[in-house]
Amino acid sequence: MKSSSVTLESEPQSESGYQRRRLLQTALAVTAGVSLHSLSAADAFAAESSAVGSPHSSHLTSSRMNSLMQDAIKACIDCHSMCLRTAMGSCLEQGGRHVEQDHFRLMINCAEICQTSANFMLSNSPLHGSVCAVCAETCEACAKSCDQIGDMRECADECRRCAKSCRSMS
Amino acid sequence: MKSSSVTLESEPQSESGYQRRRLLQTALAVTAGVSLHSLSAADAFAAESSAVGSPHSSHLTSSRMNSLMQDAIKACIDCHSMCLRTAMGSCLEQGGRHVEQDHFRLMINCAEICQTSANFMLSNSPLHGSVCAVCAETCEACAKSCDQIGDMRECADECRRCAKSCRSMS
Amino acid sequence: MKSSSVTLESEPQSESGYQRRRLLQTALAVTAGVSLHSLSAADAFAAESSAVGSPHSSHLTSSRMNSLMQDAIKACIDCHSMCLRTAMGSCLEQGGRHVEQDHFRLMINCAEICQTSANFMLSNSPLHGSVCAVCAETCEACAKSCDQIGDMRECADECRRCAKSCRSMS
Amino acid sequence: MKSSSVTLESEPQSESGYQRRRLLQTALAVTAGVSLHSLSAADAFAAESSAVGSPHSSHLTSSRMNSLMQDAIKACIDCHSMCLRTAMGSCLEQGGRHVEQDHFRLMINCAEICQTSANFMLSNSPLHGSVCAVCAETCEACAKSCDQIGDMRECADECRRCAKSCRSMS
Repeated sequence: MKSSSVTLESEPQSESGYQRRRLLQTALAVTAGVSLHSLSAADAFAAESSAVGSPHSSHLTSSRMNSLMQDAIKACIDCHSMCLRTAMGSCLEQGGRHVEQDHFRLMINCAEICQTSANFMLSNSPLHGSVCAVCAETCEACAKSCDQIGDMRECADECRRCAKSCRSMS
Repeated sequence: MKSSSVTLESEPQSESGYQRRRLLQTALAVTAGVSLHSLSAADAFAAESSAVGSPHSSHLTSSRMNSLMQDAIKACIDCHSMCLRTAMGSCLEQGGRHVEQDHFRLMINCAEICQTSANFMLSNSPLHGSVCAVCAETCEACAKSCDQIGDMRECADECRRCAKSCRSMS
Repeated sequence: MKSSSVTLESEPQSESGYQRRRLLQTALAVTAGVSLHSLSAADAFAAESSAVGSPHSSHLTSSRMNSLMQDAIKACIDCHSMCLRTAMGSCLEQGGRHVEQDHFRLMINCAEICQTSANFMLSNSPLHGSVCAVCAETCEACAKSCDQIGDMRECADECRRCAKSCRSMS
Repeated sequence: MKSSSVTLESEPQSESGYQRRRLLQTALAVTAGVSLHSLSAADAFAAESSAVGSPHSSHLTSSRMNSLMQDAIKACIDCHSMCLRTAMGSCLEQGGRHVEQDHFRLMINCAEICQTSANFMLSNSPLHGSVCAVCAETCEACAKSCDQIGDMRECADECRRCAKSCRSMS
């Protein structure tokens, strides 16, 4: 069985990302939109597990997209919280290499783009894929910087988790 | 046993909110700050249950503050997600009274102040109490507006939950 | 001549700020709203000078409110830019006392609340007064912190300018 | 005379955007950073005119980058203000096609990505180019949507101005 979400992920990036995502977005909204918007925030985040593994192909596609998007929203929110809390908390408390300009700026940049990426997905924006791609790029740079600084394993892991989830949306 | 967090909540608002919160914030940071910053985002949100109920008075205060703050951060994030998703989703889809200016603007305002309020708490800002108070005021106005529009029970409930949680921080 | 905007500023804060501001907001929107929304962003900021000094009392009130709001939006945007640029730039470059936790956090908090305050005013929110009050409180704390750190005259001045402008809206 | 900023604009996009921009960013920070951070927000925006046209090649590059970035920051701030004010104001007031989901969502998305793009540039982030590219993509989509809706000339023009300025940074 070949689902269009698999096709999507393997197709070349050369055509217009906006047009392509717009079509998918519309399909997603038609099939899954109403139920998405009537979920509570907490339920929406939990809905992924039941959606994954549906045996019906066309439903699978939008359910899987929906599930991937819920994962990505949660990953972005968690990564935003982690980066902002860590930067304003332990980084400023410890000082030294933790407030080195390139590293600290990446922490703040990462927190902000995660917030924006989550907001684009929460609004079901057809442009969320482009924002998720930049979010993934930023999270990867931030994770690498955390690895180099040391003592930042949890933050680095959260950034990598978010990067992976955002890559699946871009 | 009378904890200072109870005292805090009943003391008059006439003295400097900034000075008062600054002291509490420092106490909180000293007792609970380091462990707070080393928690993963998810763990931090879950830490409240184990913190509540400590038998030691001075520790109770900061643990309880910490727990209340984690609740409030989660409530703000959930309310932000709910308002933004609902406004950009079902409100725009349904149109009519759902896009009436006063109501729709409140939905967007509520989403934004919840985000800012969460960010002030995530950064352990001594000014978070003032932002939480405005957040509570906005959430209450938004919940009332949702009630008047109708068919917005979940969003109204999320706003009231956030308002209550933010009131406990202000 | 006694304008109602003067009356507003001297009346007690005990009644509902939301209800009071809502009425003023409506009056403002009726008189000046349409022209406000049809201005370009740049023109809107420049409109203040021509609006101030109108000889007609009822028009004066809303024009003056409008003009004060344009001033406050510009002050918030400028203060946001200054605090974020300075924190991420010269503060991180210089290190030492410039990245001391209380000071640096205030710089970031100040940048964020200025952004939110500008956004509430740009959306003509009836709740802008409450957000402006917190913005003024934060700007004042940030200006004081900049004075104590030293070598931050321009940032401190921008914060005081924004605090004064936001006080006139709260 | 061949400036490296010209070289930059014509080189292929295949190598790592992050690494490339990081080098340029460092060069920019070394040459122009300190003076940038000591400018007032208003002065910084005005500094572009005097910076353009310097006869010294290496200085020209960073001055011109600096000037382009100041232009882009101002364009993003203006476009953010215009989209948010127009959406929350005249769009909601007029209703009808002005609150059609695809259009209205784009207005809100555009306001948000402009804000984030400005913030990445204000923090001198090495990743600003990627964010500016998404900002330009969003502004172009929003301008096109405004054209289709009609009666939105000023907003469409502001979006196109911002798109052009952000393209020069990406």
